[in-house]
Amino acid sequence: MTETSDALKFRRAAVIGIGLIGASLAHAMRAGGLAERIAGFDLDADVRARALSLGVVDETAESFAEAVKGADLVILSTPVGAIDSLCAEAHAHAENGALVVDTGSVKGAVAEAARRVRREVLFVPCHPVAGTEQSGPEAGFATLFRQRWCILTPLDRTDEAYRAAVEKAAALWRAVGSHVEVMDAAHHDLALAITSHLPHLIAFTLVGAADDLESVAEAEIVKYSAGGFRDFTRIAASDPIMWRDVFLHNREAVLEVLGRFTEELALLQRAIRWGDGETLKKVFTRGRAIRRAIVAAGQETDAPNFGRDKKDA
Amino acid sequence: MTETSDALKFRRAAVIGIGLIGASLAHAMRAGGLAERIAGFDLDADVRARALSLGVVDETAESFAEAVKGADLVILSTPVGAIDSLCAEAHAHAENGALVVDTGSVKGAVAEAARRVRREVLFVPCHPVAGTEQSGPEAGFATLFRQRWCILTPLDRTDEAYRAAVEKAAALWRAVGSHVEVMDAAHHDLALAITSHLPHLIAFTLVGAADDLESVAEAEIVKYSAGGFRDFTRIAASDPIMWRDVFLHNREAVLEVLGRFTEELALLQRAIRWGDGETLKKVFTRGRAIRRAIVAAGQETDAPNFGRDKKDA
Ligand SMILES: NC(=O)c1ccc[n+]([C@@H]2O[C@H](COP(=O)([O-])OP(=O)(O)OC[C@H]3O[C@@H](n4cnc5c(N)ncnc54)[C@H](OP(=O)(O)O)[C@@H]3O)[C@@H](O)[C@H]2O)c1
Ligand SMILES: NC(=O)c1ccc[n+]([C@@H]2O[C@H](COP(=O)([O-])OP(=O)(O)OC[C@H]3O[C@@H](n4cnc5c(N)ncnc54)[C@H](OP(=O)(O)O)[C@@H]3O)[C@@H](O)[C@H]2O)c1
Repeated sequence: MTETSDALKFRRAAVIGIGLIGASLAHAMRAGGLAERIAGFDLDADVRARALSLGVVDETAESFAEAVKGADLVILSTPVGAIDSLCAEAHAHAENGALVVDTGSVKGAVAEAARRVRREVLFVPCHPVAGTEQSGPEAGFATLFRQRWCILTPLDRTDEAYRAAVEKAAALWRAVGSHVEVMDAAHHDLALAITSHLPHLIAFTLVGAADDLESVAEAEIVKYSAGGFRDFTRIAASDPIMWRDVFLHNREAVLEVLGRFTEELALLQRAIRWGDGETLKKVFTRGRAIRRAIVAAGQETDAPNFGRDKKDA
Repeated sequence: MTETSDALKFRRAAVIGIGLIGASLAHAMRAGGLAERIAGFDLDADVRARALSLGVVDETAESFAEAVKGADLVILSTPVGAIDSLCAEAHAHAENGALVVDTGSVKGAVAEAARRVRREVLFVPCHPVAGTEQSGPEAGFATLFRQRWCILTPLDRTDEAYRAAVEKAAALWRAVGSHVEVMDAAHHDLALAITSHLPHLIAFTLVGAADDLESVAEAEIVKYSAGGFRDFTRIAASDPIMWRDVFLHNREAVLEVLGRFTEELALLQRAIRWGDGETLKKVFTRGRAIRRAIVAAGQETDAPNFGRDKKDA
């Protein structure tokens, strides 16, 4: 991979799906002067209107075809469930030589769909590992991708045009502040199953289990959430549709890491039942090291409680 | 419960166990002018020395007995596993009429031990639902308890002296900024099992499961932790001894809520296996409402990513 080229500049970028990720990338590209013009298309007419009035995009289109007309960069930033239909549209309407990137949280399913796009359209599957629990164009901001990793899982093509497209996609992500890693889609899906998909599944599950408990009122759960529960509610507040699509499209890897989690949980459950303090202590001791490593890598704040409680408040 | 009295002032407070909670309470009492003198005792001589040089306490004692001599307030802020021995010490050495509060995260086990303290010593079990993932005297700060709930689980005594002691304990927590709630120990242990103990158990489990996965390197887990995993590492970085003691002393309630969690997880596992998007979406939709309620109740920040990513960074 080469470093960001000063010359990286797209004539027309088309953002398909103007939500948190699409809007953030549009803001970041604008801040970096990476595109002469940014067009947007979203299925939701209201989102289109809001994106335009927020200045996220220069213009909105009434269809995928209209948005990508003349575009040398197409950004697919819808939930993963739309990937088949978006690939059909890209196949039919994207310009020859256009770079198409997606931002989907799973990559095997994207690769499969991307292979059906004609070869003149250069589809590089991408996953920026950055986000928040919010969605919609209002949630977007230019610095979202800074110091975060973006994973590229290029298709199995060795032609020069495609290799250049992969370089250009990497340069784009670097230009918005990300570190770039290249790997195969299967490994991506397993690594993200443990670092992202399983944590979300568990957070959703915990919130659901709390909701189902008749013996403890919701008001109490809210009051005493500072005991730890509130940490889980952040990711459990993420978009249900996006996450439904992730689990429907990364089934195998999620079930595999879920199996590991369940084994570990059974071990701790037994230790609690039998009063085995040694096992509990041993398992509990592992947490600090990994958090320290995450903080050291610049992926997390070291302020207690994520810094949300002000010491001098 | 009456409101905080202006006259609330202890002659001598003895803090037993000068860690995050003990030191925070000492700081808060000093800031509020709630004690003429604050003495501290900790099993660890190094902690005693650090607490003294940090100015957390006015003096340190070499024993429990020495610390509580002349104290009209005794604060037990060690891990819950020490409660039996602390109660034996309080029985033998605390002054007649002294108010004794603990801060332990479980209350049934504390009540049982507290009943063995002689009646002239007024033991009011307390749990401030406030904390951070850090421990030790350096971690303490005066505002930790502000706007958080403190739960009192008074013993089954109706004498006037004890009722006055409960009032005084409530006034103490209010004076450091907390809201006070009174309930029975069994209900406390169930409510906290879902809002605090289970979240910690699950966070520890997830970190352990990630650690065990040979197919994904730790370096990758660190890099891609912004996908969600990092949220869990905060509470998984909490003190292993404190948490071992919580699980050893709240076994039944934890196993009960863990059962609920496991059922809910099995439901989602089946939905993923069978591609049942409707069920996934339904469960995932519950998260936003509860987070909104927690934010509205002042127990959480509404900034995306807990505010740890600066938009203008
Ligand atoms: N959120 C994160 O933290 C995060 C992080 C990394 C990657 N990602 C990935 O990035 C993608 C976008 O996520 P997001 O959080 O930005 O989602 P979002 O805020 O919900 O935005 C997605 C937008 O796409 C629109 N859309 C859906 N189907 C479409 C179609 N066929 N054509 C045009 N627009 C369509 C949606 O409209 P409707 O509402 O009308 O459906 C919505 O406005 C997802 O694939 C996700 O997996 C997300
Ligand atoms: N941390 C939280 O978020 C939180 C929140 C609410 C309530 N609590 C409860 O508050 C209590 C204290 O927690 P913490 O976080 O403040 O713990 P901490 O920072 O680990 O401090 C506890 C201190 O007590 C000392 N200690 C242990 N046994 C003792 C004994 N028999 N006599 C005197 N000192 C002793 C420990 O010394 P050694 O290190 O030498 O053992 C340690 O210095 C626990 O019961 C916990 O359940 C904690």
